[in-house]
Amino acid sequence: MARVVMKFGGTSMAGMERIRSVAERVRREVDAGHEVAVVVSAMAGETDRLVQMCREAAPLYDPREYDVVVASGEQVTSGLLAITLQGMGVKARSYMGWQLPIRASGHVSALIETIDVSVLDRAFAAGGVAVIPGFQGVTGEGALATLGRGGSDTSAVALAVAMKADRCDIYTDVDGVYTTDPRIVPRAAKIEAITYEEMLELASVGAKVLQTRSVGLAMRFNMPLQVLSSFEDRPGTIIAGEQAVEERNMERNIITGIAHDLNEARITLAGLPDRPGAVAAIFRPLAAANINVDMIVQSVARSGQPSDLTFTVPTASLPETVAELEKIKAEAGFAEVLTDTDVVKISAVGVGMRSNAGIAAKMFDTLAERGINLLAITTSEIKVSVLIPEAYTELAVRVLHTAFGLDQERVA
Amino acid sequence: MARVVMKFGGTSMAGMERIRSVAERVRREVDAGHEVAVVVSAMAGETDRLVQMCREAAPLYDPREYDVVVASGEQVTSGLLAITLQGMGVKARSYMGWQLPIRASGHVSALIETIDVSVLDRAFAAGGVAVIPGFQGVTGEGALATLGRGGSDTSAVALAVAMKADRCDIYTDVDGVYTTDPRIVPRAAKIEAITYEEMLELASVGAKVLQTRSVGLAMRFNMPLQVLSSFEDRPGTIIAGEQAVEERNMERNIITGIAHDLNEARITLAGLPDRPGAVAAIFRPLAAANINVDMIVQSVARSGQPSDLTFTVPTASLPETVAELEKIKAEAGFAEVLTDTDVVKISAVGVGMRSNAGIAAKMFDTLAERGINLLAITTSEIKVSVLIPEAYTELAVRVLHTAFGLDQERVA
Repeated sequence: MARVVMKFGGTSMAGMERIRSVAERVRREVDAGHEVAVVVSAMAGETDRLVQMCREAAPLYDPREYDVVVASGEQVTSGLLAITLQGMGVKARSYMGWQLPIRASGHVSALIETIDVSVLDRAFAAGGVAVIPGFQGVTGEGALATLGRGGSDTSAVALAVAMKADRCDIYTDVDGVYTTDPRIVPRAAKIEAITYEEMLELASVGAKVLQTRSVGLAMRFNMPLQVLSSFEDRPGTIIAGEQAVEERNMERNIITGIAHDLNEARITLAGLPDRPGAVAAIFRPLAAANINVDMIVQSVARSGQPSDLTFTVPTASLPETVAELEKIKAEAGFAEVLTDTDVVKISAVGVGMRSNAGIAAKMFDTLAERGINLLAITTSEIKVSVLIPEAYTELAVRVLHTAFGLDQERVA
Repeated sequence: MARVVMKFGGTSMAGMERIRSVAERVRREVDAGHEVAVVVSAMAGETDRLVQMCREAAPLYDPREYDVVVASGEQVTSGLLAITLQGMGVKARSYMGWQLPIRASGHVSALIETIDVSVLDRAFAAGGVAVIPGFQGVTGEGALATLGRGGSDTSAVALAVAMKADRCDIYTDVDGVYTTDPRIVPRAAKIEAITYEEMLELASVGAKVLQTRSVGLAMRFNMPLQVLSSFEDRPGTIIAGEQAVEERNMERNIITGIAHDLNEARITLAGLPDRPGAVAAIFRPLAAANINVDMIVQSVARSGQPSDLTFTVPTASLPETVAELEKIKAEAGFAEVLTDTDVVKISAVGVGMRSNAGIAAKMFDTLAERGINLLAITTSEIKVSVLIPEAYTELAVRVLHTAFGLDQERVA
């Protein structure tokens, strides 16, 4: 017997037919003798619809009342799943965030503080299944709180931690995490197991399988996650600590996956004077405006001569960034602000990289061989990212996927 | 300064444009210096949609989980109205049934037990408007509970009583209570004021303006109600105790209104033996099956001879009633069960009737003059009802409306 959290996303809950198929999956886990808590999202599109109504009600809506409105979507699917399970003879009951309670602080993107699972422990002891709306909790003052878009993944992981679950299964519309985007590389392989760190790096560079925050939480409490398909019946991808991942696959590739992220914009400040504190004077106001600066390159200049400073920001932040830079242009003394959104960040991610200094070199060589020009480079302990012109996206992903030995054997 | 509950139904809350117009009305009351609590229904059609999903989830759905699902409709409109009010500069906040709390017992058609208004008192003291979802409460065990279809009227009245409100205004898609159906009698007049008893009688015979239960509750606590239009800006109909109504209109008509109810079916048991307990033996099993028998007529027979027994039941109960009767046919000894659904119940309602024994006679005369055959008759202290063939519905309503002096002066 295991304790399991099963989490189902919006596409899995979209309509009664899909809810019935979710209930079938839950029943199978129950029949296998497990103690099961199910965390559900709102039906696909429902949260968007509710958010849109809040916006129409008032452009600057009250976060507290927004939470009252949008928390309703998961309330509906929880009740419907409980009814469906009961109809199949499974003893199920829904528990709202405020009923457990799931204590959270803040509104719109609240943080989970504690989850009281004593009611659930009693339900499990009596052979019951608990259905819990994702994305929501209750504040210390007793107000409804929601966790921010995609928050149901975080609800599921937090609940799994509080319940001391053996694992947390995230059912979604993809069947696992792939070595790269299969639409670009048909020979991309599903990854059997991946470490939290790798998943975080992949997620941060465009692999949108799990909410980053939920992976971070799972890592902190060493809660094994599994990403698997709601619609197909086969194993997914395990996300776990390094040791658990190594145990499953001792001969893992040094590189786990290649990701690409089109959501980057490049900014170049031309003619920045060479004086102490010049770069800090640029980034300080950007940080104050909550603009997330990613890759930074400063061209080497002769001492005392002006140089160019290049960096990237999320495309959505570009207009705001340019506005902030124009404000300080005179004081900072640079000549002009150049922007370029036709760029892509390509990243190779792998825990093995820590002991392989050659990875970066191999990546640069592979791209240079195809005449791909590197606009910027950034590395972390387990990731090397390069910024290249957007037109080369698919080519770069494919050649790197092959170069790092990730291509799957074709099944005849 | 007065304390006011304003209740808005589903058509008044259907869509953001209408919610904005509701908010305008609320603001007007606030600007007039009143302490205002607003009770809202779900958007028109939303509760039906949620109920339908519960039915699809399982034909015999769990009442507890049904309540979780359907309570969401009012949660959404409460949050949206609070946001809209804030956008207009009105200090508003929503309070769910479980937050106040509104304690209720049971599920699907729960009964309100108590309402704690201490939070609202503090909100009013701070100049705030409270928005409260109708139709819902929380059980002693902390589960969501709903009050049954149309329950928002009852929520509003119960809240008004708990708040010691000066009045409870029910905004709806009609602008008041009329002397009869204006579609049948164009000269029907809007009633300025009507007693609780009259409203109850009118509601029970087809005037579907207010949920009967809410009127009964208002009567018990002598809470003045007003029914008025959400869409037009003019006084509605006051529903209050007899004294308050008389004060508004000392020269009221003896008859307040003429109602008709097509939802009656006539059953005749032919050849019922004349023996002690014969009639009781018929009605006992019907009562056990929760069938609501209304008008009863027994034809006078010579002692010892079989007679006919005629009574009415709601049309929806007819198949079940016939089935119950067939079961006891042999034992009860009647010859056959005759049914007729082409009948209508026409009622004249008025508190003044208590001291006017001639009302019934006048009603019978008026109908007899037009050759309308009376199939059954029933009277209460403030109502005379007759059952006639359905084809005469409009004619009977019109001649009675005129005979009792209810025709409005035509405006040139």
